[in-house]
Parts: sequence; structure tokens; C-alpha cells
Amino acid sequence: MISIALDAMGSDDRPAPEVEAAVIASNKFDVNILLVGDEVHLTKLLNEINGDKSKIKIIHAPEALDMSDHIQEARQKKQNTMRVGMELVKNGEAQAFVTAGNTGMAMYFAKKVFGDIKGVIRPCLCAIFPVKNGRCVVLDIGANAECRPEFLVQFAQMGSIYAKCMLDCNEPKVGLLSNGEEEGKGNNLVRETYPLLKDNIDNFIGNVEGKELFGGEVDVVVTDGFTGNVLLKSTEAVAKLIVNVLRKNLMATLRTKIGALLAKPAFGSLRKMLDPAEIGAAPLLGIDGLVFVGHGRSDTRAMVSSVLIAKQAIEANLLESLRISISDTL
Amino acid sequence: MISIALDAMGSDDRPAPEVEAAVIASNKFDVNILLVGDEVHLTKLLNEINGDKSKIKIIHAPEALDMSDHIQEARQKKQNTMRVGMELVKNGEAQAFVTAGNTGMAMYFAKKVFGDIKGVIRPCLCAIFPVKNGRCVVLDIGANAECRPEFLVQFAQMGSIYAKCMLDCNEPKVGLLSNGEEEGKGNNLVRETYPLLKDNIDNFIGNVEGKELFGGEVDVVVTDGFTGNVLLKSTEAVAKLIVNVLRKNLMATLRTKIGALLAKPAFGSLRKMLDPAEIGAAPLLGIDGLVFVGHGRSDTRAMVSSVLIAKQAIEANLLESLRISISDTL
Repeated sequence: MISIALDAMGSDDRPAPEVEAAVIASNKFDVNILLVGDEVHLTKLLNEINGDKSKIKIIHAPEALDMSDHIQEARQKKQNTMRVGMELVKNGEAQAFVTAGNTGMAMYFAKKVFGDIKGVIRPCLCAIFPVKNGRCVVLDIGANAECRPEFLVQFAQMGSIYAKCMLDCNEPKVGLLSNGEEEGKGNNLVRETYPLLKDNIDNFIGNVEGKELFGGEVDVVVTDGFTGNVLLKSTEAVAKLIVNVLRKNLMATLRTKIGALLAKPAFGSLRKMLDPAEIGAAPLLGIDGLVFVGHGRSDTRAMVSSVLIAKQAIEANLLESLRISISDTL
Repeated sequence: MISIALDAMGSDDRPAPEVEAAVIASNKFDVNILLVGDEVHLTKLLNEINGDKSKIKIIHAPEALDMSDHIQEARQKKQNTMRVGMELVKNGEAQAFVTAGNTGMAMYFAKKVFGDIKGVIRPCLCAIFPVKNGRCVVLDIGANAECRPEFLVQFAQMGSIYAKCMLDCNEPKVGLLSNGEEEGKGNNLVRETYPLLKDNIDNFIGNVEGKELFGGEVDVVVTDGFTGNVLLKSTEAVAKLIVNVLRKNLMATLRTKIGALLAKPAFGSLRKMLDPAEIGAAPLLGIDGLVFVGHGRSDTRAMVSSVLIAKQAIEANLLESLRISISDTL
């Protein structure tokens, strides 16, 4: 039976969403959950929740990382939940680790505990964007602010494997994020990467812009970690601004309030599209172990969906597929 | 009296929006419009429109640039509307040039016709973003895919002058776009630029992300032209996706259709916020002449507002302010 190590201390509202998600997910998906955090506290919380808890085991980790922690402080916390949880996977007690904590920290400890998949030049962070009629894998979104062209070729390779294993995408179309669609457009990195992608990646469709990404015309978009991070955060921010302006306007008068009430189902589908719970967690790609990082503002539903994604990755043999794909190109 | 040269052949639907805008703007703002395009065609179109056309003068330019034109093709079109229009400004017959054509082309011809303001290392493109409770000047959004730190310091300087002259912002707060707020975050360019901005720019508030930009916490955001272009296009694309999903959902059932009808005023303000006509044209900064480039999908209203922005820039002495600011730092 599948076992998943779940960081109880990752989300902004920790550990309530994680504890509730452990109960729901262990039953709904029939998986063992190793819930990692302070034993006394978690036991107390679990006791307050109804439901079958037979598939949950609490693993004691007395320390929790904070979003504001720097590497120096994190290093001091030897028994933090991320490290302890990843060790469970490393030792074979679980097959994947799930957290809603700081992505940079997760990458730091993942590199320490698992190391890289043999042949990977740089592991990276990926995000799954909601786009027209589907999803798009974007990577790197923050691990490598400076990249060399060969990094992006591997990102394309790993992103394609992810799309195949996890997004039911048989022949993922790969695009290179640029400031213009034509070959020759881009900064130095993009112009040097283009011919390498053309030679090495099946289904490379060339440079893409926001239009193609959000228009659902591409399944995998590669970029350096600086640009990817700006892309992720700015599009999140603009979506939030639009939703907030709309909400404020809808509450402005009685007429619009009634309209909003009637139109509620329409807003529901929009909310669903932008909901981190619908997207779930994203993997650290290139790490020699399955680690999934969810959004910090994950609620119980989001944590449950993150556990599901980890389970699907285990069942789809994601890690082994990545290892094989990388070793084939060595 | 102020005279503005207006490219009749810039917008996607050219020349109808431009011709209509010439009639409206010349009367509404009491400015002379030099309408640049094919004389026979424009005369015919003008004759079909009602209204006082006494302040409009058609300037013949037989060739029009196309969005798909490359520099090579554009160069062949010696008498294109952009070049002819800019020459009018250069010769003192008009004080500013307005176009809704290709921004890259406008930059190319502006450099040829006007050259750079003395002391400017690189002119740049700027965009005015709608943000929470206001506007934010973002530059460079595409002229310089590769930048050096000193370019960004000048972008900050020019963006601040623009915000002061045009956005009624007395002490514009300047941010450096990065993948994290703390000093030390960023790619090499950002980490090298940070100390220069700290030393040279009043009101430098440090690194910013999408959150601060769209949250309205900063008035000027500087970045390299590659990242700025990705930012502009991806946030436009995500806004479009959200609006389209919402529109589709609202039209899905009778109930939501009625709701949408009642809630119409609320959508109106959102549309207004995202409307290029509300934002109007953006200037080429660092060019030794006033050139404003509007969105390609400008309609008549957008063209009218672009003319207004050019008029305001003339009245605010934008060009002279830029010249003085740059020469002060030489």
C-alpha cells in the first residue's frame, strides 16, 4: 500500500488543514499517511476529529520551519518537519513527501536528503498554470535565477515527462518563453537555447508568449527561474486584482448584489479555475525523490488534492520515468 | 496652438479609428491634428464624417507599415506614415507624434528621426499598468532584451519624470522587479542594479514582485526589456482569459444571464480598468522627441485618449523635463 509523508507544519494555517486532510485523504484514496510534526499536538488535534484514523501514523518532528526562515535558521532546526518527512521517503517508509511550506526550503532540504537524479545539471521548480481548457507546466519558476541553455533543455525534458505522466498529455508541446514568437527574438539565453531545443526536444513549437501559454496552445513552457518566478507571481497578482475589483463592484449596489447572487454559478467556475486546491501541489523536478510543494495558502481541500497528486505520481512511476529519460540522454 | 501629428495607419482597424479620433480630439481638446496617411483616401473618409474639421490637416504619406513588417521591409517604405509623421515633429510643424502601430518600428524610426536625448544610454519602451487604485509605469517593456545595470538606473530616472509630469505623482516610488523582495534576491542584473538604484534614485523602495506592482504600492517599476515584455504580455493574457471564462460562464444559463444583466455596472468598471482606451498611449522614453504609441487594438475612444495624453505631455513639458533630468546626472 502506498504511504505518503505529509508535512503537518507547511501551510499558512498549519496544522489544521494538514490534520484534516490526513483523515480525509487516507480514507478517500486508501493510502497510509505519515503525518510529520509535534507528536503531542498532532495527537490532540487528531483526537478532536471524527473519522477512521487507522491509516494515519504520526511521526514526531519537534521543529517547524517558518516562511520567514533563512537557510541559516533552517539549518539550526535539525529536526524540522521537512527534513524528517523527506528522510522517511529516503528510508523507504514512504514513497513521496508533500508539504505546503516554503518552496526554497523544500528544495534546499530535498537536495541534502535525496540529491539530484543522476545526470541532472540543475533541479528546478515547476508550477502548473490554469490555462484555456487545461493546464500548462511552467519551469523553472524560481530555483535557478541564472540559467545556461543546457539547463533549459533538461527543464523541457523533465517538464515533458511530467506532462506525460501526470496531465495525460501524450505528446506534450514544448515552448520557450520569449518576448516575441519568431526565432531570433529573445535575450541571449533564449537565442542560445532555441537551437538546442529544436535539436533535442520532440514537439518543440518555438518561442511562446503569454498569449500561447494562457491560450492553451502549449503544454510545457521553459524559462529561467527569474523570469518564471516573475511570470508566476505577476499573473497571480493580476488575477487577484481582477477578482477583488469585481467583488468590490458587485457589492456596490443592491442591483449588482442581486445580479451577483443570480450569477453565482458563473463566478464559481472562475473561482475553481483560480483555486490552488484545483491545481494542487507541484513537484521539485530533478530531485532523486518525490517531493510535492503546495501553495502556502492551501486549505484542507488543497492539501487533500496535493496528497492525490503525490499518489498519482507514485502510481505513474514519475520518478523512474524521469531517471530513465535523463539517463537516456547521457 | 498645439499641433499633434497623428498616424492614420497604425491601429488594427486603420484608418477609421484615427480619422474619427482626429475629428473628435481636434474639437474636444482644441488642438490641430496633422493626420498622416494617403491623402485621397483620408480626404474621402473625412468627408463622410460630420463635424468641424477646420483644425485637421491631411499630410500625405503614401505608404503604411504592417504589423508583420520587418526592419528590412520597413526601410523600403521611405514615405511611411510613421516616418513622415515624425519628420513633422522634427521640423517643428507638430509637437508630438501619436501612433497605434508597431512599437518596435516606432522606436526604430524615432531613433533615426530624433536620435536620443543627450546622455541617454538606451531609450526604452514604457507601459502604464492599471493597478489597485491607480497606475504604475513599467519600463523597459521591450526595447532592450539585454540590459546593463546603468540602463536600469536611467529607466528609473526617466520613469520617475514621467510619473511626475503625467500621473500627478510628486514623489514617485521606484521598485526593481525581482523574484523576491529582499536585497540580495534576483538574477545577476538585479543584484548589480540594486545598490546603484539605492545610491542614485530618490524613493527607491527596493525589490518588488507582482504583489506590490498590482497592489498599487509602487509608482515606477524598472526591469530589463525581456522580463518587462513577458510581464506585460502574460498579465494581459491572463486578464483576457479570466474575462473570457467569466463571459462564457455568465452566458451559460438563463439564471446567470439575468444575473449578468443586473450586475452589468460592476462589469463595466472592470472593463474600464482593463480597457486600453483608459490607459491610452505610452511614450518612447529617451528619444529626443515626443512619440506616443497606443495599443494596436485601439478604437476611436482609445485614439482620442492617446491624443489627449500627447497634449498633456506637451503642456507638462515632459521632453524638456527629461532632458534636464538626464543632463543633471551627466
